[in-house]
Amino acid sequence: MAERYAFILSDRTGITAETLGHSLLSQFPTISFKTLALPFVDTHDKAADAVRQINETAAQAGARPLVFATIIDDEIRCLLASSEGVFFDLFDAFLGPLERELGMASAHSVGRSHGVVDVAKYTSRISAVNYSIRTDDGVNVVEYERAAVIIVGVSRTGKTPTSLYLALRFGTFVANYPLTEEELERGRLPGQVLKFRAKLFGLTIDPERLHQIRNERISGGRYAELRQCQYEVAAAEAMFRRDRIPYLDTGAMSIEEIATTILHRANLRRDLL
Amino acid sequence: MAERYAFILSDRTGITAETLGHSLLSQFPTISFKTLALPFVDTHDKAADAVRQINETAAQAGARPLVFATIIDDEIRCLLASSEGVFFDLFDAFLGPLERELGMASAHSVGRSHGVVDVAKYTSRISAVNYSIRTDDGVNVVEYERAAVIIVGVSRTGKTPTSLYLALRFGTFVANYPLTEEELERGRLPGQVLKFRAKLFGLTIDPERLHQIRNERISGGRYAELRQCQYEVAAAEAMFRRDRIPYLDTGAMSIEEIATTILHRANLRRDLL
Repeated sequence: MAERYAFILSDRTGITAETLGHSLLSQFPTISFKTLALPFVDTHDKAADAVRQINETAAQAGARPLVFATIIDDEIRCLLASSEGVFFDLFDAFLGPLERELGMASAHSVGRSHGVVDVAKYTSRISAVNYSIRTDDGVNVVEYERAAVIIVGVSRTGKTPTSLYLALRFGTFVANYPLTEEELERGRLPGQVLKFRAKLFGLTIDPERLHQIRNERISGGRYAELRQCQYEVAAAEAMFRRDRIPYLDTGAMSIEEIATTILHRANLRRDLL
Repeated sequence: MAERYAFILSDRTGITAETLGHSLLSQFPTISFKTLALPFVDTHDKAADAVRQINETAAQAGARPLVFATIIDDEIRCLLASSEGVFFDLFDAFLGPLERELGMASAHSVGRSHGVVDVAKYTSRISAVNYSIRTDDGVNVVEYERAAVIIVGVSRTGKTPTSLYLALRFGTFVANYPLTEEELERGRLPGQVLKFRAKLFGLTIDPERLHQIRNERISGGRYAELRQCQYEVAAAEAMFRRDRIPYLDTGAMSIEEIATTILHRANLRRDLL
């Protein structure tokens, strides 16, 4: 497999540059990219140091490293763009056209997108995270009144990370409830959960994949057996259909995909925090 | 405050397009942007529907909406670009130059960046999340051997969301330990925590802001009193200095900033999952 170096450069966290680079590089699956993040490049000295690293890598690798950047300061950006790397800068590409369209100069200030936030937003996000933890795995059902969504599903369908992702990224209050063997046999959710039917969202998964995932966790034992996984998934899906709970086959979806699909299907607000 | 509509369009989750748009719009703080996310626009019908929404918004608002997009399919992208919106597409801007540099065509496949992941990566990420929950708030100290970082600090300095963010985004194993009043008085962490000194990372905060944050949670009471916050912060910082625990004043930093700063300072790997 061909190899190539890629740098993520940012004057702040590097989260935007990383997302940008990751999206673009994922379109070249036959190349193995070695990425190196250089966040907080906010002085001339640090920029000169980054240029040195890029140039050394270029010399050693015998190919120009790709550089994905979000650098607001024009001078620092020029310095970085002078490296041996192939420079792709988000602000460089889009800020000019955007300024012309909006008829004003941009603030040109560093780290605004993942930076300072007001106390109310910050605490509402933390509240959502704490809510997710408090109501994780079926505990504190008494707090379901406050949930925007209650995710239900058998063990290892991604309920917990999806809830936390939604809390962290969008500040959504999400509880999650695991279907127990007893409930699967009865074919019925308990009344205290079912009364929130309008907020319920089911997760299901291919039994083969569930088997693989459970095996990675605990090898051997009935829990991870394919037959057990097949039984649980079939019983859960039957329950979702009968109680008209919308559900999603997570297949090989990532947490991000599951989370944004739930927001989308449940028609929930999607505000970045 | 001037208002402007912005659409986030994607053939998949919209996470990249959202990050792109958010970063760019944050450079225009005097405009109030109303954003609307349209994820999973992956057919001609959905694209036509999106164009209709954009055009209706343009007509109603009397100004062209901004459109931030990540659309892989050329036909769908062309269709969307024909709307009344001002179109900014990540792939449109960067994929051509990248293809030329790499000397190959891109895969042109949808949803690769936040999409399908292999079972091993998926479970390692879930393991990190479960580890964070299991070791949240000072419990299960016996599992500290496995941590890459152990965050310490007084209540409400952002330990829990930072740990979870690191687990979800980078698969890092992060525990967190709250400093109790007793420990602050003694000026000493317990031995079972201190023995992992090399992994400890302190969080501290401006007492005024801590006071504000705690007040948002529980109004009144000694816990949120400014004097109490001042005492705790001073005692914690004294402890960090004496035990040579690196620490970060989170000031008005966001969770993303705190998390990436810790990775950076602790020299930890930063691989997107």
